[in-house]
Amino acid sequence: MNTTIAEQRALSESELMTLGTRAFTGLGLEPKDAHDVARVLVMADLFGLSTHGLSRIESYGDRLRVNGIKARPSIQVEQVAPAIVRVDGDNGVGPLVGMRALEAAMATAKQAGVGIAFARGSNHFGPVSPYSLIAAEAGFASIIGSNATTTIAPWGGSDARLGNSPVGFGVPNPQGRPFLLDMAISVAARAKIRNALKRGESIPQTWATDKAGRATTDPAAALDGFLLPIGGHKGYGLALLVDLFAGLLSGAAYLTHVKSWVDAPDEPQNLGHFFILIDASRLGSGEWLAHRMNDFAAILHGSPPAETDRPVLVPGEIELNNLERHRRDGLALDPAVRELLEQHAANA
Amino acid sequence: MNTTIAEQRALSESELMTLGTRAFTGLGLEPKDAHDVARVLVMADLFGLSTHGLSRIESYGDRLRVNGIKARPSIQVEQVAPAIVRVDGDNGVGPLVGMRALEAAMATAKQAGVGIAFARGSNHFGPVSPYSLIAAEAGFASIIGSNATTTIAPWGGSDARLGNSPVGFGVPNPQGRPFLLDMAISVAARAKIRNALKRGESIPQTWATDKAGRATTDPAAALDGFLLPIGGHKGYGLALLVDLFAGLLSGAAYLTHVKSWVDAPDEPQNLGHFFILIDASRLGSGEWLAHRMNDFAAILHGSPPAETDRPVLVPGEIELNNLERHRRDGLALDPAVRELLEQHAANA
Repeated sequence: MNTTIAEQRALSESELMTLGTRAFTGLGLEPKDAHDVARVLVMADLFGLSTHGLSRIESYGDRLRVNGIKARPSIQVEQVAPAIVRVDGDNGVGPLVGMRALEAAMATAKQAGVGIAFARGSNHFGPVSPYSLIAAEAGFASIIGSNATTTIAPWGGSDARLGNSPVGFGVPNPQGRPFLLDMAISVAARAKIRNALKRGESIPQTWATDKAGRATTDPAAALDGFLLPIGGHKGYGLALLVDLFAGLLSGAAYLTHVKSWVDAPDEPQNLGHFFILIDASRLGSGEWLAHRMNDFAAILHGSPPAETDRPVLVPGEIELNNLERHRRDGLALDPAVRELLEQHAANA
Repeated sequence: MNTTIAEQRALSESELMTLGTRAFTGLGLEPKDAHDVARVLVMADLFGLSTHGLSRIESYGDRLRVNGIKARPSIQVEQVAPAIVRVDGDNGVGPLVGMRALEAAMATAKQAGVGIAFARGSNHFGPVSPYSLIAAEAGFASIIGSNATTTIAPWGGSDARLGNSPVGFGVPNPQGRPFLLDMAISVAARAKIRNALKRGESIPQTWATDKAGRATTDPAAALDGFLLPIGGHKGYGLALLVDLFAGLLSGAAYLTHVKSWVDAPDEPQNLGHFFILIDASRLGSGEWLAHRMNDFAAILHGSPPAETDRPVLVPGEIELNNLERHRRDGLALDPAVRELLEQHAANA
């Protein structure tokens, strides 16, 4: 399983899928389950979101090997109302629980027009945008979110009590590109603060607080402190909303009840997610929707750019451009990630 | 109908309701419809949101008198799926269309567990939080939003193509206070920029751009330009999501198709709203939910404040405190607002 420089050529989507599926099968998952996990993570890589792609084999793999995550969970789906399912992930790999919940929500929405899946007993489920795209390609508008390990202080507080919860949205377009938005609630990612520290630069006062909860421009103090949410109290409220839906209403852990997979990799996190799916075909014809979606994008693209060389973008445009390019040209994985995948794949 | 200083005493909630209902009846609404409009606006005043309360009698009244809004609309509710209704507001007063849509969504959610109402043909519907509280008190979690006249440039653009769309959330608590969040997508309201100009102060660079779409600290240039969304491209995406759900999917106008009631008070705006309602009783018992909601709030309140005299708050706390105080002590309206209400009430 030695990896040479020559082997770091770009892989096609189907090669990435095969490698990812074999790697998770090697970690003990059923091949069909491993395929679903790989589908989410490979799509993340193709979107350009490599921090949430197959590189997650490292942390997921570590936890699978110490039974912090179950390789063969017994995932339960319970229909509690015509438009609501509750999903118990039984501490399975996050993207597996996520895919089962997404499928249940889509099936429910097909029947009732709307389907909401509330999932508990889960783990880190990757980025939101792969789920939103799968939903949009099947004709569903979506609002999807997950809670997360606590890294953010309440607005005006001074210790970590809520997660930098991801939330995303999608609207299908039967004759063009869907709208996709996938965001965490912090103004900036911690990686940006680490980069500022390396370069010896200060950071904007809106990015983070020190460990006492006071806004800071010092990246070292910020890394010791807490990320700030977008819009101050507004982002604080949004992060709570995501946790209320993903954690509290789902029956999962929430706020400080969520276990840290870094501090306790061998314990279940009991993370929660929600998937709100709407069958857009109940609202009008495909032509009607496509016309409006294309008009909507055209209005935004038509705004004269503030800087002449930077045209206005619509949400999802960068990720969908990356997806097209990577599907055409393939994608070269980080060598260490590829080596780890191949090590696990050898056990399949 | 002269108003003297002595008359500006605090009014009780029922006096406010009687005055508001009579005023809108005087403007031509059916008494029951006028009552529903007053309910939303009075609750806004009691929450402390006076800019979105009975003071709206001025703009609503002006438009009703020039037939820009219909006093007696024929509002249509169409069930398009077990969990979805479409509401055509027939250009009625916004809070009336909003209340009819909320009622339809709650009735649908009672049946299917989830109910979504997409409303078109509407107008400014007041703040979101009164709808969220009515829903929460009936046991429903909610996500509610509306589009709005265009005042914000696309991220990186240089003309107004999207609205400062309000969106709000609620989660019920059967034995305590609900969670309520009601926000517009801009970092700051235009009123804050006007106040900075009056005081001769500069504004933070994150609040607004000049008319060319460039970030500015000059309040005068900002008032000539555009509000900036929270979190830059993130808030831009959120504002679009609200317009996609409230405007595009509902069949209403969206983005630049929304007419300005300031520029064209006599024309229908065709504003849209969405109401996503979830019957929380399908997810667990009232005791289960109350225990989790009270624990959730206690965790947040327990964070040591960054500034000792400013304890951590949870979203909705300020508004619900105001509501309690005003229900106990009454509320004194702005004299000009009260006079206008009494003028219209005299025609009832």
